[in-house]
Amino acid sequence: MKIILAKQAGFCFGVKRATNLAFEAAGKDQKTYTLGPIIHSPQVVGRLADLGVRALDSLEGLETGTIIIRSHGVALEEITEAKQKDLTIVDATCPFVKKAQEHVKSLSEAGYGVVVVGDAVHPEVQGIVSYGGNKVFVVASGEDVKKLPKMTKIGVVAQTTQSFENLKNVVGECLLRGGEVRVYNTICDATAVRQDEAKDLASRVDCMLVVGGFNSANTHRLFEVCTEIQPRTHQIETAAEINPAWFEGVERVGVTAGASTPKWIIEEVMNKIEELNKSD
Amino acid sequence: MKIILAKQAGFCFGVKRATNLAFEAAGKDQKTYTLGPIIHSPQVVGRLADLGVRALDSLEGLETGTIIIRSHGVALEEITEAKQKDLTIVDATCPFVKKAQEHVKSLSEAGYGVVVVGDAVHPEVQGIVSYGGNKVFVVASGEDVKKLPKMTKIGVVAQTTQSFENLKNVVGECLLRGGEVRVYNTICDATAVRQDEAKDLASRVDCMLVVGGFNSANTHRLFEVCTEIQPRTHQIETAAEINPAWFEGVERVGVTAGASTPKWIIEEVMNKIEELNKSD
Repeated sequence: MKIILAKQAGFCFGVKRATNLAFEAAGKDQKTYTLGPIIHSPQVVGRLADLGVRALDSLEGLETGTIIIRSHGVALEEITEAKQKDLTIVDATCPFVKKAQEHVKSLSEAGYGVVVVGDAVHPEVQGIVSYGGNKVFVVASGEDVKKLPKMTKIGVVAQTTQSFENLKNVVGECLLRGGEVRVYNTICDATAVRQDEAKDLASRVDCMLVVGGFNSANTHRLFEVCTEIQPRTHQIETAAEINPAWFEGVERVGVTAGASTPKWIIEEVMNKIEELNKSD
Repeated sequence: MKIILAKQAGFCFGVKRATNLAFEAAGKDQKTYTLGPIIHSPQVVGRLADLGVRALDSLEGLETGTIIIRSHGVALEEITEAKQKDLTIVDATCPFVKKAQEHVKSLSEAGYGVVVVGDAVHPEVQGIVSYGGNKVFVVASGEDVKKLPKMTKIGVVAQTTQSFENLKNVVGECLLRGGEVRVYNTICDATAVRQDEAKDLASRVDCMLVVGGFNSANTHRLFEVCTEIQPRTHQIETAAEINPAWFEGVERVGVTAGASTPKWIIEEVMNKIEELNKSD
């Protein structure tokens, strides 16, 4: 059985940066916490917990120590609260997410109604939205734009993992309303590149494994696009979940991983498949 | 034979305004000129000439008098030249065109590379372009965007008579280049509304007449869209061009007119068809 690992599997730039910052911080201050999970990988969160770094839901009750802002970013009010409490802040917000936050802030200040293209319940989007005033609206698609109140100046940003087609449709609908539309294409193409490569790989194998957190949106999407092409696609968080029966009659197996899946987990998965292959 | 006149036939807002300004000015100063034809109607230009208002190609040799800026606007340098010569300026530029000019100016000053969606040889577009710096580019379609130099901040405006689909495609291509895209939808929907009504009318008649200047782009486009639906479509500038043979066997005839076609010409056309109808 041939085992092929996708080139773009695993950590993206922002996740790698956030993880490094968190492990560095862990060694410096005994009272170090993350606000929300640092990245959407229970295994990375677990390793940090082993080093004493706990993920908090809020800053309530916390008076001293170091707080690490997760890669998806947090709400502006939480940063403000951390500053007021004089906590040491390690900002591990992905620089691409930070750009989107900054654009929403400057657009709001310049009097634009702001449209954020994305998933309203995703923490990244909730953080981005918090940087604007009271005229910030999340839309999932162009259809949603039709329901928005009248605005003469519209600013548009996107959740970094959105598809370009969706951003383009939303902008088209905004333009139909006339006036000015100011768009910042804040999409990070790492997601699209990873998906394209995974689709290509899925079309060339008999079985596909997608490795990543069940709470990771990009991993779940990766699983969906691969399943469409290769129905024998399985999502796992760790090597322990691999079922040898999946490989029966399989000649080529493909492996990819979400943006928040650490290298060591991918290696464990690869080793486990190799072992099964040898004992076959 | 039933004769149906389109509701949206003839002068649009900007053309009506320009024509009124020109006829008003004609009475005030004996030395009154227009820079280019005031609107794309040889008949209106002829009537103004009868009142002593000549259309000039340039300001060369002109030292005194009143200069009327045509509805399509002129190049910024020509306005500057007229001011330097201390001519009286009557600005009949369509307010929608003026907006496009102003946006190109402010976008250029703010450091944007500017994309003008339109026809590079149309006087309106040439005027609009002149308001920008050395980073203004005319594109006919999204395809043209791919040939543009690298720009981190792109401003987009459209010739007022462009189709919305084309603007949307161009903006999509600009967004693909990343960074910021700031769009002013300067399309005047009078053109689209007139075309939609003409198409509907053409589908309900056996013969269609489109009245307007042969030098008028919007009239020509109106002729094209009607011909697609009703091959028995004819473009005329005046009633004199009507050929009675066109109406043989026709039960319903539709009439529409370009944005620069004056009411009196449309009335002459309607009267002529009525006469032919009675003598039938």
